[in-house]
Amino acid sequence: MQKPVAICDPWPRSLDLMFTASDLSRLHTLVDLVTSDERQMPADKVDRTLPEAVFVLGQTDLPRERLARAPKLKAVLNVEGNFTGNIDYDTCFERGIHVLSVSPVFTETVAEMALGMAIDLGRGITRADRDFHAGREVFGLESNADAELLFDSPVGIIGYGDLARSFRPLLKPFRCPVKVYDPWLPDHVLVAEECRPAALDEVLSTSRYIFVFATVTASNEGFLGADQFAAMQKGAKFILVSRAGVVDFDAMLDAVARGHILAATDVFPQEPMPAGHRVREIDGLLLSAHRAGALDSVFKRMGTLLLGDMELMLKGLPPVGLKRAQRETVGALRSMAVTIS
Amino acid sequence: MQKPVAICDPWPRSLDLMFTASDLSRLHTLVDLVTSDERQMPADKVDRTLPEAVFVLGQTDLPRERLARAPKLKAVLNVEGNFTGNIDYDTCFERGIHVLSVSPVFTETVAEMALGMAIDLGRGITRADRDFHAGREVFGLESNADAELLFDSPVGIIGYGDLARSFRPLLKPFRCPVKVYDPWLPDHVLVAEECRPAALDEVLSTSRYIFVFATVTASNEGFLGADQFAAMQKGAKFILVSRAGVVDFDAMLDAVARGHILAATDVFPQEPMPAGHRVREIDGLLLSAHRAGALDSVFKRMGTLLLGDMELMLKGLPPVGLKRAQRETVGALRSMAVTIS
Amino acid sequence: MQKPVAICDPWPRSLDLMFTASDLSRLHTLVDLVTSDERQMPADKVDRTLPEAVFVLGQTDLPRERLARAPKLKAVLNVEGNFTGNIDYDTCFERGIHVLSVSPVFTETVAEMALGMAIDLGRGITRADRDFHAGREVFGLESNADAELLFDSPVGIIGYGDLARSFRPLLKPFRCPVKVYDPWLPDHVLVAEECRPAALDEVLSTSRYIFVFATVTASNEGFLGADQFAAMQKGAKFILVSRAGVVDFDAMLDAVARGHILAATDVFPQEPMPAGHRVREIDGLLLSAHRAGALDSVFKRMGTLLLGDMELMLKGLPPVGLKRAQRETVGALRSMAVTIS
Amino acid sequence: MQKPVAICDPWPRSLDLMFTASDLSRLHTLVDLVTSDERQMPADKVDRTLPEAVFVLGQTDLPRERLARAPKLKAVLNVEGNFTGNIDYDTCFERGIHVLSVSPVFTETVAEMALGMAIDLGRGITRADRDFHAGREVFGLESNADAELLFDSPVGIIGYGDLARSFRPLLKPFRCPVKVYDPWLPDHVLVAEECRPAALDEVLSTSRYIFVFATVTASNEGFLGADQFAAMQKGAKFILVSRAGVVDFDAMLDAVARGHILAATDVFPQEPMPAGHRVREIDGLLLSAHRAGALDSVFKRMGTLLLGDMELMLKGLPPVGLKRAQRETVGALRSMAVTIS
Repeated sequence: MQKPVAICDPWPRSLDLMFTASDLSRLHTLVDLVTSDERQMPADKVDRTLPEAVFVLGQTDLPRERLARAPKLKAVLNVEGNFTGNIDYDTCFERGIHVLSVSPVFTETVAEMALGMAIDLGRGITRADRDFHAGREVFGLESNADAELLFDSPVGIIGYGDLARSFRPLLKPFRCPVKVYDPWLPDHVLVAEECRPAALDEVLSTSRYIFVFATVTASNEGFLGADQFAAMQKGAKFILVSRAGVVDFDAMLDAVARGHILAATDVFPQEPMPAGHRVREIDGLLLSAHRAGALDSVFKRMGTLLLGDMELMLKGLPPVGLKRAQRETVGALRSMAVTIS
Repeated sequence: MQKPVAICDPWPRSLDLMFTASDLSRLHTLVDLVTSDERQMPADKVDRTLPEAVFVLGQTDLPRERLARAPKLKAVLNVEGNFTGNIDYDTCFERGIHVLSVSPVFTETVAEMALGMAIDLGRGITRADRDFHAGREVFGLESNADAELLFDSPVGIIGYGDLARSFRPLLKPFRCPVKVYDPWLPDHVLVAEECRPAALDEVLSTSRYIFVFATVTASNEGFLGADQFAAMQKGAKFILVSRAGVVDFDAMLDAVARGHILAATDVFPQEPMPAGHRVREIDGLLLSAHRAGALDSVFKRMGTLLLGDMELMLKGLPPVGLKRAQRETVGALRSMAVTIS
Repeated sequence: MQKPVAICDPWPRSLDLMFTASDLSRLHTLVDLVTSDERQMPADKVDRTLPEAVFVLGQTDLPRERLARAPKLKAVLNVEGNFTGNIDYDTCFERGIHVLSVSPVFTETVAEMALGMAIDLGRGITRADRDFHAGREVFGLESNADAELLFDSPVGIIGYGDLARSFRPLLKPFRCPVKVYDPWLPDHVLVAEECRPAALDEVLSTSRYIFVFATVTASNEGFLGADQFAAMQKGAKFILVSRAGVVDFDAMLDAVARGHILAATDVFPQEPMPAGHRVREIDGLLLSAHRAGALDSVFKRMGTLLLGDMELMLKGLPPVGLKRAQRETVGALRSMAVTIS
Repeated sequence: MQKPVAICDPWPRSLDLMFTASDLSRLHTLVDLVTSDERQMPADKVDRTLPEAVFVLGQTDLPRERLARAPKLKAVLNVEGNFTGNIDYDTCFERGIHVLSVSPVFTETVAEMALGMAIDLGRGITRADRDFHAGREVFGLESNADAELLFDSPVGIIGYGDLARSFRPLLKPFRCPVKVYDPWLPDHVLVAEECRPAALDEVLSTSRYIFVFATVTASNEGFLGADQFAAMQKGAKFILVSRAGVVDFDAMLDAVARGHILAATDVFPQEPMPAGHRVREIDGLLLSAHRAGALDSVFKRMGTLLLGDMELMLKGLPPVGLKRAQRETVGALRSMAVTIS
């Protein structure tokens, strides 16, 4: 019996990045994997394979014409993590071709990093370590003049999607009251998560720790600007782990540079950042070079999710682990495509 | 009506350190506070006041003879945090004089710090920030070669007292299996805390994150030495936040220096550390200058606990917030006395 | 400005059942509600209104022809709770018309009831109360010969959908190891929920408490039959709160009647049950007349979810509170339609 | 080498009730157990054994004279669960003889029962089952006219001791705001448990579920009387699982009988209750014949705790699992002694 055909075109990822050896052999058992030796699969090979393809694993261009040549296609499996303009989504939605992303693998790892960064800012871990290594350490109370517990502190969350859902449980034992701003969600969803829905201004002006989990869309680029940073409390901790595009990065740097807030960021408007950029000079700024999600063990989890959902779909069941593109929002997402892992 | 008399001799703490303005006024309402202008209360003033004293708030010397002069004494309130040899404990236990310590104020703040340090070591937060500030940052996966999630990682805890009890809930959402070594506790106590009791060797050799919460006693000084560090897994994360005395500090530094483990420590065999000490040169070592507990808000919580328990005792009820010295163990404790806050 | 039109045809529910007064007025502000005086909206009125309709709120028949007359339709809002054959789902999926159900309102209330029933069976609450009222009570240990704690007991869950997800957190503080059988889910989903995936046989034969949360489908009708009940441990507690159709009801009654297991059920193959049915005579059987979900406050929550999602869809956003019909499974569901609330 | 001597006089318990076979053999290994064939150890045998006794396991009378004959005594292990007047506590406290009780074994089992009873009252489980068995069942919404979810309901707790601490976690997933009345505890203790301290009146008048976990003392007998029941909300659920003595039982029955509240009780002013007592006739009253704690598995846990603490004390360490009598409160406790298990 013939196995279902899967076009394998995962660049900038690779199979070895995403699959453990044993998962890779499960994958080969499950599907007939059509690969190419090029970085990206040559157009003619894609075209030739599409008529039999049940899955496309990768960010292969799939305009209407190509989809028309793929009558058996059940799902397009985006392994980069962001939905971009490479696909004719309308056709997929019409035909019930799932467009799926591996992005859920990142939620717990980024949530953990966000918590680590928050405690780092609140307790001054990195700065105190730097002082100690430089022989400038100050012991005890005197070194904690600006320190603040996360326990019982008012927390604000901006954007309550999958990432926030992974983060919320980590916060529970700290007894923080949590306010959330998310214009895409009805209040009852937030209340069920033990959060208080609030306007952006209220979240900014009443929180000691502010977490930005919002994805960037057509309508929210740079929506956290100078006014928003000014609205924050003196000494507030600002943790940015989703997308740099949602903040006016310079306004954020200004707010930190003048000592108004502390900030931690895992994302940047350009990656890598230019050598001479002032970002490196600012005290009170915790820097992480897009490291929150990109662990080997996390990439391997992509394979787990891909296999799980491919098996379900081959049994005629809906996928449950990967994230689905949605008609209403897929066109509004504005994340940069990743070109390196 | 006369208020009960309290000898106030808190050095190295002070009333202003421990009480908010409003708590201080509650204290004055509750007791007649006898203070002195000296750093420590002069002996004759102590002696003169003891016959009326209901409480001693501080680390005043209280040998048998002095206690004999204090027939109304209900409690000695140690505000330094460690029980030391300044008191004739036997007499106190015989007479039912509570000997109490403010140490519980530190458990949550130290637990929070321990978690922050663990995530810092696992995810390389401080080191990556240092690289970024130095213009050496590496983006994404490549920078995470040694990174490891706390989620689902085997955790070992050494010493399961109040501190571990405050820490355990913080770990729950991370789904870590937890093994505990504590020779002072029966297994059933640990099982009820959703931990697995284990021998020290097993804890050391099977955990990716090892937290030391053990207090130092007459019998455990330096019990974590070269052999114990060798028994840990390559790349294990070692977090020390209780007392430096439980580890052979040099052996720990050696293990980090040769790249066998990563470590974070908030405590040191000498505080402050000598200027030229190699501790500052070792990569993979996260340094915190006894900062985990010493926050102003934490010291203010001492007042809350002191007031709460003093009020109870004046009503003839047992104290519930402060920690009680115990006959069996008070003589075995070996922590250094603190001389600065 | 004209408001969007919503066909309101909710029988067997009613607007007053589902909306509080204030939610109802929000609904009227949001849409132009077209209702009828009949129990169900007459066909011609439906046909007349469809060309302008943005929402259909109810179980109105919507075959292909009717959908063709509804070019503005954004969503069909099933308020009965089960997807049935009244709609041409293919057309809806093609056109991106959401088919949504209020079923999520029931998950917490049913989960709470399931926990209450489990403790009732384990601890003999109802039976002991019955004995007491009859003057046959036995005090203390002797009355607990068959009693069993939920704390630390092995639990099995059959079917891990929305209901199980609402139930799982309720079980956490009881420290129960949980095994799950759900052939529609990959293992990683269950592991993330702190459950162990297992074969049906293993779940049945190793659990002291077995919860059935599975919905009935074309392929699982009666899959829990005589063999499965025989595989359970003597004295196991069986709690059925999803659909009677998944069990061979007579086999379940036999297993309880012969004292092999205890059982609680909220659902029945016929509702109401015939007067003389043996179900009423069997000791060890806890009976609940489809009461687990049907509370007034729960029905009012339908309004909250409906309003929330209608507002989102009118803003061009995807619904988030109601449950979506899925192409793969909607045709396989076999729940009885409800005709009374 | 000689083993330490333990007087074994556990009536109304027995060794077989409290120890599994393997724990019993551990006990024999640990101590030289002096038992008697009588229900209670004859006075002369007690007197003869005391000079060597390290432990007394049971409720043996220990007045000052007897304690004077027991120079090696480390602990008196009450296995009945309540401290009564059989001991000269002052002497014990003076000499540092621990007076310990097995009562902690009961906290989780009673907490579980309290939750089961609360859901039973709120959801009408027992009453609906009774109706169903009698052929009077009503299906669905109509049967839930008085039903109420525990989820999100205001909860009141009266008495926040060990039992409440075991209960609180069970309530967490239900998102209930919790108010607590406990005059023996400072506010900060309750706040740390995520409860709001409140006056008794406020707890009674604002809660939908009221749990009584207070033990009976010299000063609180019958403190919940007619006025307190009148202060409760119509339809409030009252759950009594600690001691009957804290309520005016007749006032409680009146409040239930007139339909003002629903109540569940595991304790009674007389046990057993007289045959003709009206308690059996009152609808809305859930009756449990002191069954909440008395499970075989729970009694076996006494052995676990006893062994654990005896081992610690023989090593010179303080006990940690059993409950300690306290100087201030032991004289104020007024629980009835148990004469049957």
